[in-house]
Amino acid sequence: MSDFLDQIKWNEAGLVPAIAQDQDSGVNLMVAWMNRDALQETVETNHAVYFSRSRQKLWRKGEESGNYQVVTEIRLDCDADVILLKVTQKGGIACHTGRHNCFYRIYVDGEWKTVEPVVKDPSLIYAK
Amino acid sequence: MSDFLDQIKWNEAGLVPAIAQDQDSGVNLMVAWMNRDALQETVETNHAVYFSRSRQKLWRKGEESGNYQVVTEIRLDCDADVILLKVTQKGGIACHTGRHNCFYRIYVDGEWKTVEPVVKDPSLIYAK
Repeated sequence: MSDFLDQIKWNEAGLVPAIAQDQDSGVNLMVAWMNRDALQETVETNHAVYFSRSRQKLWRKGEESGNYQVVTEIRLDCDADVILLKVTQKGGIACHTGRHNCFYRIYVDGEWKTVEPVVKDPSLIYAK
Repeated sequence: MSDFLDQIKWNEAGLVPAIAQDQDSGVNLMVAWMNRDALQETVETNHAVYFSRSRQKLWRKGEESGNYQVVTEIRLDCDADVILLKVTQKGGIACHTGRHNCFYRIYVDGEWKTVEPVVKDPSLIYAK
């Protein structure tokens, strides 16, 4: 039943990085980490569940913000140590900064330039 | 000059994961790791350079296979611990298995199903 979990090369902390990619636009929204329980629950619920390294517990994306991710496809890479999720991002906001996605800085002439606007003030997204 | 490198949150091994995404199709080709030297050289040469954890040295993607990656954009995520490269993949093969990309397995009913064909036999790509 959990064979697909055993095939993954979890790192020394029992985690692998997971990319969430918008299934329609192809935009990479974010990268987070998954442990076995996170991937198992993602498979069962079709909602993206990660493992928060800072909080050391399962992170059901959107549980606070409402901006959850419906998972339409789960892929594994050749080395079995990276997960790729195709998702529909509810609310259109994947990033905790209130932006559409987390990759909002571009390298230009030795600096990281912010190129994506804040869609919604984070203080309005997250409960106090 | 290296301020943009100092802004990155390198992990305890001095690395961050880097996604290579096809700039035209949006397909995620692969994920590898970068250290400071790899990112510096990528910026300078506009060719993707990674750090090979298994070989513990810089890995100039395509140096053996000829399938190098021309980098057209470099992005950094909100936590400054993931790099996203937009690339043009020379040869159309990013994966060491001879496939177009590394994410060739999809989760289906408890198993990882291979859904992408081998474009070229790896034994014909890599020198003995």
